[in-house]
Amino acid sequence: MNADAKKTALRMIPYGIYILTADDGKGNVAAATVNWVTQTAFAPPLVVVGIKADSGACKIVKQTRAFALNMLGKEHKGLAFAFFKPVELKDGKISGQPFTKGETGAPILTEAPAAVECRVKHIVEDGDHHIVVGEVVEAHLHKPPSGRPDAAILEMKDLGENVFYGG
Amino acid sequence: MNADAKKTALRMIPYGIYILTADDGKGNVAAATVNWVTQTAFAPPLVVVGIKADSGACKIVKQTRAFALNMLGKEHKGLAFAFFKPVELKDGKISGQPFTKGETGAPILTEAPAAVECRVKHIVEDGDHHIVVGEVVEAHLHKPPSGRPDAAILEMKDLGENVFYGG
Repeated sequence: MNADAKKTALRMIPYGIYILTADDGKGNVAAATVNWVTQTAFAPPLVVVGIKADSGACKIVKQTRAFALNMLGKEHKGLAFAFFKPVELKDGKISGQPFTKGETGAPILTEAPAAVECRVKHIVEDGDHHIVVGEVVEAHLHKPPSGRPDAAILEMKDLGENVFYGG
Repeated sequence: MNADAKKTALRMIPYGIYILTADDGKGNVAAATVNWVTQTAFAPPLVVVGIKADSGACKIVKQTRAFALNMLGKEHKGLAFAFFKPVELKDGKISGQPFTKGETGAPILTEAPAAVECRVKHIVEDGDHHIVVGEVVEAHLHKPPSGRPDAAILEMKDLGENVFYGG
């Protein structure tokens, strides 16, 4: 296989930027920037997310079998980078961000324009990231987009000329 | 669950447009427009695609355990709509498009700027679309993008103001 062709072809896939959150109710809270996300069914509404297999977030999601995907807005470039770092719980905030507790227990970031909460239905443990299939069981819309929803989300290409996660 | 919030939140996920192709070597050829695609691992390089469960394409991919994702360019809006329709094999073309035979046997559309070929590793049969996990085994780069690869691909939002597949 031509490695350069593979990298370039896979980097053609466009990605939004999400903060994946989860809380096992025992003091373990996950909040991590992810981008490998797609819907995979309308009925039931399923989404797939690729989560780094050796990450704390992956461990917590597997244990608690629930997570939220907080969609970021175009103005949230700083948040995307903030959640690349380890989670800091302080003054009732997650890494400085206010949140509410969702139906699944997952933290819902108040400043994110929207979020979906999912119950884990399947996990495919293959590769350096595992494939988590979640059914959307709740949704939050804090700031309805004025135009197309997919034009309002922060995208990988908004993070910087040479920022990629894929390939 | 608030159905409108769910729809809007899920429609924030940005999508590229791909022609999924497969050939079982027994005269059954698939070529269908899809958008529910994400990478899910670097090693091995895995991609997930959501394929309509009752479609001919899904049947062929399950039988032959291989497929290609042909990435469309910004100029290929017509192709996206052409492959919403049933496949037409005529004069050595697929619905009017020239192709070569990939390593997996999947048709590689010559006019698509890039394509990845995958061997099916896992299938999650849940929902009105099934989750197909493929390992990338070959890649084709017909027209290297001049800027960011994810700025060169045809996107859902390029297809029309009210065109969505998701939510």
